[in-house]
Amino acid sequence: MKHNLHNGGTNMFSKGYRRKTKPAARPGSILVPDGAIPPTIRMTCYSPTELEDNQNCAIDQVRQMRGKYPVQWVDIVGMGDEALFEQIGQLFGIHRLALEDVVNIPQRAKVETFKDHLFIVCQFPRHGRKHTFEQASFFIGKDFVISWREHPSDCFDTIRDRLQFTGRALRDSGTDYLMYALLDALIDSYFPSLERIGEAIDRIDVELEAGPSRPLIIRLHGLRHDLRLLRRIVWPLRDAVDSLTNRHDWLIAPETSIYLRDCHDHVIRIIDSLESYREACSDLRDFYSTEVGNRMNEVMKVLTIISTIFIPLSFLAGLYGMNFNPEVSGWNMPELEWRFGYPAILFVMAAMSIGQLLFFKRKGWLSSFTTTNHKSNGNRTD
Amino acid sequence: MKHNLHNGGTNMFSKGYRRKTKPAARPGSILVPDGAIPPTIRMTCYSPTELEDNQNCAIDQVRQMRGKYPVQWVDIVGMGDEALFEQIGQLFGIHRLALEDVVNIPQRAKVETFKDHLFIVCQFPRHGRKHTFEQASFFIGKDFVISWREHPSDCFDTIRDRLQFTGRALRDSGTDYLMYALLDALIDSYFPSLERIGEAIDRIDVELEAGPSRPLIIRLHGLRHDLRLLRRIVWPLRDAVDSLTNRHDWLIAPETSIYLRDCHDHVIRIIDSLESYREACSDLRDFYSTEVGNRMNEVMKVLTIISTIFIPLSFLAGLYGMNFNPEVSGWNMPELEWRFGYPAILFVMAAMSIGQLLFFKRKGWLSSFTTTNHKSNGNRTD
Amino acid sequence: MKHNLHNGGTNMFSKGYRRKTKPAARPGSILVPDGAIPPTIRMTCYSPTELEDNQNCAIDQVRQMRGKYPVQWVDIVGMGDEALFEQIGQLFGIHRLALEDVVNIPQRAKVETFKDHLFIVCQFPRHGRKHTFEQASFFIGKDFVISWREHPSDCFDTIRDRLQFTGRALRDSGTDYLMYALLDALIDSYFPSLERIGEAIDRIDVELEAGPSRPLIIRLHGLRHDLRLLRRIVWPLRDAVDSLTNRHDWLIAPETSIYLRDCHDHVIRIIDSLESYREACSDLRDFYSTEVGNRMNEVMKVLTIISTIFIPLSFLAGLYGMNFNPEVSGWNMPELEWRFGYPAILFVMAAMSIGQLLFFKRKGWLSSFTTTNHKSNGNRTD
Amino acid sequence: MKHNLHNGGTNMFSKGYRRKTKPAARPGSILVPDGAIPPTIRMTCYSPTELEDNQNCAIDQVRQMRGKYPVQWVDIVGMGDEALFEQIGQLFGIHRLALEDVVNIPQRAKVETFKDHLFIVCQFPRHGRKHTFEQASFFIGKDFVISWREHPSDCFDTIRDRLQFTGRALRDSGTDYLMYALLDALIDSYFPSLERIGEAIDRIDVELEAGPSRPLIIRLHGLRHDLRLLRRIVWPLRDAVDSLTNRHDWLIAPETSIYLRDCHDHVIRIIDSLESYREACSDLRDFYSTEVGNRMNEVMKVLTIISTIFIPLSFLAGLYGMNFNPEVSGWNMPELEWRFGYPAILFVMAAMSIGQLLFFKRKGWLSSFTTTNHKSNGNRTD
Amino acid sequence: MKHNLHNGGTNMFSKGYRRKTKPAARPGSILVPDGAIPPTIRMTCYSPTELEDNQNCAIDQVRQMRGKYPVQWVDIVGMGDEALFEQIGQLFGIHRLALEDVVNIPQRAKVETFKDHLFIVCQFPRHGRKHTFEQASFFIGKDFVISWREHPSDCFDTIRDRLQFTGRALRDSGTDYLMYALLDALIDSYFPSLERIGEAIDRIDVELEAGPSRPLIIRLHGLRHDLRLLRRIVWPLRDAVDSLTNRHDWLIAPETSIYLRDCHDHVIRIIDSLESYREACSDLRDFYSTEVGNRMNEVMKVLTIISTIFIPLSFLAGLYGMNFNPEVSGWNMPELEWRFGYPAILFVMAAMSIGQLLFFKRKGWLSSFTTTNHKSNGNRTD
Repeated sequence: MKHNLHNGGTNMFSKGYRRKTKPAARPGSILVPDGAIPPTIRMTCYSPTELEDNQNCAIDQVRQMRGKYPVQWVDIVGMGDEALFEQIGQLFGIHRLALEDVVNIPQRAKVETFKDHLFIVCQFPRHGRKHTFEQASFFIGKDFVISWREHPSDCFDTIRDRLQFTGRALRDSGTDYLMYALLDALIDSYFPSLERIGEAIDRIDVELEAGPSRPLIIRLHGLRHDLRLLRRIVWPLRDAVDSLTNRHDWLIAPETSIYLRDCHDHVIRIIDSLESYREACSDLRDFYSTEVGNRMNEVMKVLTIISTIFIPLSFLAGLYGMNFNPEVSGWNMPELEWRFGYPAILFVMAAMSIGQLLFFKRKGWLSSFTTTNHKSNGNRTD
Repeated sequence: MKHNLHNGGTNMFSKGYRRKTKPAARPGSILVPDGAIPPTIRMTCYSPTELEDNQNCAIDQVRQMRGKYPVQWVDIVGMGDEALFEQIGQLFGIHRLALEDVVNIPQRAKVETFKDHLFIVCQFPRHGRKHTFEQASFFIGKDFVISWREHPSDCFDTIRDRLQFTGRALRDSGTDYLMYALLDALIDSYFPSLERIGEAIDRIDVELEAGPSRPLIIRLHGLRHDLRLLRRIVWPLRDAVDSLTNRHDWLIAPETSIYLRDCHDHVIRIIDSLESYREACSDLRDFYSTEVGNRMNEVMKVLTIISTIFIPLSFLAGLYGMNFNPEVSGWNMPELEWRFGYPAILFVMAAMSIGQLLFFKRKGWLSSFTTTNHKSNGNRTD
Repeated sequence: MKHNLHNGGTNMFSKGYRRKTKPAARPGSILVPDGAIPPTIRMTCYSPTELEDNQNCAIDQVRQMRGKYPVQWVDIVGMGDEALFEQIGQLFGIHRLALEDVVNIPQRAKVETFKDHLFIVCQFPRHGRKHTFEQASFFIGKDFVISWREHPSDCFDTIRDRLQFTGRALRDSGTDYLMYALLDALIDSYFPSLERIGEAIDRIDVELEAGPSRPLIIRLHGLRHDLRLLRRIVWPLRDAVDSLTNRHDWLIAPETSIYLRDCHDHVIRIIDSLESYREACSDLRDFYSTEVGNRMNEVMKVLTIISTIFIPLSFLAGLYGMNFNPEVSGWNMPELEWRFGYPAILFVMAAMSIGQLLFFKRKGWLSSFTTTNHKSNGNRTD
Repeated sequence: MKHNLHNGGTNMFSKGYRRKTKPAARPGSILVPDGAIPPTIRMTCYSPTELEDNQNCAIDQVRQMRGKYPVQWVDIVGMGDEALFEQIGQLFGIHRLALEDVVNIPQRAKVETFKDHLFIVCQFPRHGRKHTFEQASFFIGKDFVISWREHPSDCFDTIRDRLQFTGRALRDSGTDYLMYALLDALIDSYFPSLERIGEAIDRIDVELEAGPSRPLIIRLHGLRHDLRLLRRIVWPLRDAVDSLTNRHDWLIAPETSIYLRDCHDHVIRIIDSLESYREACSDLRDFYSTEVGNRMNEVMKVLTIISTIFIPLSFLAGLYGMNFNPEVSGWNMPELEWRFGYPAILFVMAAMSIGQLLFFKRKGWLSSFTTTNHKSNGNRTD
Repeated sequence: MKHNLHNGGTNMFSKGYRRKTKPAARPGSILVPDGAIPPTIRMTCYSPTELEDNQNCAIDQVRQMRGKYPVQWVDIVGMGDEALFEQIGQLFGIHRLALEDVVNIPQRAKVETFKDHLFIVCQFPRHGRKHTFEQASFFIGKDFVISWREHPSDCFDTIRDRLQFTGRALRDSGTDYLMYALLDALIDSYFPSLERIGEAIDRIDVELEAGPSRPLIIRLHGLRHDLRLLRRIVWPLRDAVDSLTNRHDWLIAPETSIYLRDCHDHVIRIIDSLESYREACSDLRDFYSTEVGNRMNEVMKVLTIISTIFIPLSFLAGLYGMNFNPEVSGWNMPELEWRFGYPAILFVMAAMSIGQLLFFKRKGWLSSFTTTNHKSNGNRTD
């Protein structure tokens, strides 16, 4: 189940650098990605007292509502229509380079300031049967917020619910607070992924103490891949949110800054977790290696003890299995004719075995056969 | 015993990212954590000359005492009452986001400045049968200090004792000095944990020189986990205390700054120790690996020496155990009929063994059997 | 195929530090590199309304067109003519040290500001049968852009195509926008190389899970070499583009700055990929090592199980193959004369084998023979 | 001998975090460390023309001489008297927190500025039979320097010698130059320790090329411990000296700054050495590991060659040692009755051995037995 | 040959921290190093029009020429005369601490500014039969440049040659340009060392792919030592040259700054190479380790296959070599009397062998014997 993220990650990972625009294409050219779904627009306009929510509205409706409400939130899902980009661009006066970034998937998270609007782009995890990442772009102006996602998801539903209530901060504030609420919703969607990774690490840790096995190291390898991917996505997000937090201008009111600071704290907590998980993975890998080494040592000891005890004995047995003819001379294997030849050789063999066992005992090789696991368990449960 | 911290740590660790608030919940909403105990308030109001200490006082008593003393210290233990947060928030004019941070456990340590109060949140180790971490939050205003902890602990008792004496800095100073004293008490509670870890590392070091064993590496693995956890908690604390130290404003007097600098020194000493312990753990793990490699080498040598000496001998013995019929022709195993056949083969075998021993001696394989431990001990005690 | 980059890289790598100028040669002396091809000049002069494109034009034509158009783009390919450097230097007033940097291959990417022109030098990958790196230098003045490359390549062709259209940003803007377009084209030429490396890493990852083999580690070793090389080339490029982005002066208009910021984003994405690939390579190497360890462990277990089962049995068989004479005394190998001697020894042998198998089963050595691969696959496809 | 530092280090190390003050003790409380020796005061007062040196003088004498000379150097050795701290504190107006730091051993090196004096605390190595670290504290005012050490040592003797001569910079300058001289003496006392470590590393390097052995890795492990300890002590010292170097105020004259810069250079050289030694140790550990791997490989090859040659031969011999009755049928072991059966089997055995030897030779396993050491030696001495 | 640098390096390395001045010696005291050669002075005075070159001139001649030319270059080789330091110090007004640094070998590279002169000290490699490092110090005033080296070398010869020509930048500029030329010459002398190291790394890489051997790892170990040493010398040089580049004052003209920037580029290129070589060395070491692991795996497989095939066969052979008396009862080894007993056992043996071979084939152990090298080679040359 965890590996879905890994697989999704791999796809994501390579997709990330298969650019849609050919090298040296004209900058600002908009080429919608293959397989993009046709866009649907949901427009939510509100003031502290009034609220108008339009599902599946057309671009003309958006044009008509321009400037009628303090906050006009245009939530677009789907990128399959090149013309819409042109129309939105003209209607809200958005720079072509920013529009190009919306369709070029994936982008590093960033915040760009233009003369009369802010452009934010970031990735967020989409939970489903498979873990994938989605790109979300935001344009924030004095009286409009445009959010643009790849696929439908429910991550903004709670915000729409909160918008229903008058007298709440969200209804009473401007576009900056809505921007904060949207960003916060996206950032919060990272936590379930983190939790899942944390649990996977804990599970590997527990299983590893029971003994190393190949599937564990493959799962660990997959986790490292996921962490690398997440890290690469979250670090730029941190810089982006950081730059928002430190900005005090016509767009972002000081009160909203306090909320953005909270947002920033969340991103830093995500990064703290990622770094901590990375180290945990490294530790587990090292632990795995030492465990494999321990096992090998154990195996070698068994082999060595058995071999070194029996090989000399076998030699002795072979020696007296030789067919030198005792009848030719008294020099040829006289032991075979001794009265106590056989008991004597058995005694010699037993003495040799006991001697070797004592030697191994002194070297501490014998004790580890049985006590290793018990000792460690004992230590554990104390 | 050490592993309690490890276990406690694991719990702490995952708990840290199982957020109580659902994604996109209304910011500033206060959801008390599951299993929180009902709060009890202890209020200590004092001026250089007077002191009033109220255990188990009600929120009304707190309201009545507002502004009557230069310092009103409200020490709340337990988070099980949502209403209390609202009341405290209104009474002292505290921002909702800060109150939300009090109940969202665990928080990264941080210092947040609001218009007329400072908010500090941090984790500190709680010593008991099991090692766990507690969250403590502080609100510091011009004439009040609110401290809010999860569970009862004795960490502030010495401060209360010191408050009994008039003429001491603590009684004569304002809320900033009390804040320093509380912070210092929390920071000092890290040192016993550090000591315990340091002793655990020393013990592993000593045992490792006696020889590597699996329990050692499991204990080391647990220590690394604890250090990772501690590090993640202490680094933000450092930033928080640092920001306090560099602040000179209406709240923190220059004389208190000198004391905060001392506080800062302590945090840096904790971090120094943690980093040093981390490196020590890495060194021990490497040392363990080389030790296991050494052991394996030793085991292999024993196996190889025994095998390479006896396998050819066994072959020779087997050779003359063959039943080729000497009566068919003189070509078939004439040695068996020689007069000194048996002594000759024994001599050949002895010669081969001695030759191989000499070969091993020249390769330096024999010497290591007995002298390794003595040499290293000798070096040690010189 | 991938290894061409590796090989090309190795050449590049050593070439990079085989300086053409002898130590302590006069600074500013121009020594064309060995094997440089004779230069050809292509001059493209344009204004928003007019465009003149001259292939294979002579230095005199360049001189005549000086100042006749707002933008005079002189695109030189080949470095085999020392005199041309002198002439270009005099004609455009270029500092000797900058000219020296053009021929000293390879240079670290850098941007140098002179009184009335900017000098940019950087490396870019040339795609072909073999991957190599080329040096490109640019001189940008108020009304001229000189680009100087080592070998002919098609990387600027799309820019020339775009120049044909009037009314586009490229035609309407000055030398700064042309500089941006040229830089962007070079930077975009890194992406195919990155993609190829990313695919190579993915392929190794997949093959490695099937099992470690020596060619994999050699390919991985080659990839690390390539990444090291690319990194060393791209990091200075980042600094160079960064310094361009932050510059607002007589040369670079604010509108162009927005485009340069986009350029900067691309370089950072390249660096992100390189770092991510580096980590992926490290992880793969570690994974390979643990896999080799696992295999070795497996091999050792097979050897140990077979040996420890059969060596004692062989000893027993050898024991009763001894030729002690039972006729001499009843003490000599009476078992041989027992009625059920042979079945008894067979029973003892079977009992020993089963005992050992149970011992190995309890140690968990047997299970891994067959289930390892299935388990891991099972986990994978869930 | 080297391990004395290691042992001393271990003590130091744990001592460092066994704080004498109980958590939440009153700040500024002075608790003399256990086992501190009773203090002796040596006072040296001087002007360019006069010098008065008082060994074993009482606190009253110090009080009488206050302000009589431009420089009053009070050199205190031993911390066993709590009252002296109070008296010195009152006499020179020293902050209680600084006095607390003098007795709290060990402190991180630091420089603290108070209104009319500077406080410096640092660690320095004390050479003797065992290597330990000492804490030295300095208070520098306009006309006094107080130095406070734990135990008597001769590190300031040369400074006293130099004070005897008039006309030298030391006699003619103020308290800042004396401070520089004292610091420089302490810093210089690090160099012998570094030299000893450097020599130990060189010795391990040389011995390691002769072959890996367990004592080497234990010595290396000890060295890493020492370096970790030294590093932890020296890094804060660097910051402290750095802050002194960049300070130009009422206390430190510009001419003295030049000398402090020299002091700073020395600290940086110490740090350079430590970092370099650390890397050298890491390299040696890696080298050791590869050497152990090489040895193991060598051992395995010997085992494998001997085993794979003789085990099949033994099988053949065993085969013809079977007792199938040739008299029952012609199918039973007819070879035994062949005329050249024995020579034939000997020939087959010889052929098999030679074939295997050729196989091993082609794999390059044989060559390494004898040439490894010679080749490497040869390379070395070229 | 490469190892000369290693050996030279080792000497250098330890020498670096065997300070000539005893701890707490008087600062500014000049103690010439042991084995220093007697100094010879070569004075070159020049103006754009005139040039006077004096080999082996005396200190008096230097005194007479003071101020007669715009640039007076005093090139001193050898440090064996303490008096000369005093005389030069007095004649040019040089600070004693700077003179002390000239003789204290080795110094970290640094630039120190005094009131009317600049002091530069750095190390440079001296090429010869053995690679060693030399210290060069420079004093640059308004009208004089003093260069002071340990031993004669030809590194400044080309500068003297260039001085012969009038009309060149070197003759027409002041002391700052001469300083640049001297520094550039020293920095350029690093490139041959780098090249040699780069080639050594390439050679090891090529040889390593053919197969790991102990001499390779010893050479690699030596290279790491050299890189560590070079890095420690070059990093401070970078800071020194950097500080020169950013300085615009009475001494360094803006035009010279452009040249110093070039110098700075060279140092950064050296550092880039060193870092890249370091990583290459690390990769090679890792590659070596995995190769050794691969080899060991290969060896183990051979051993295991041979052992596991023949040990059971030997057991069977031994079994039927037992001497149980078939005449006692029909239970005792009836197989020996079977008509097809021997062919049957041969068939069983063959079946077992083939079964095991199939098992090994399914595990993929057999394929690696022959194809490993070919596959990798194949990949390589594609």
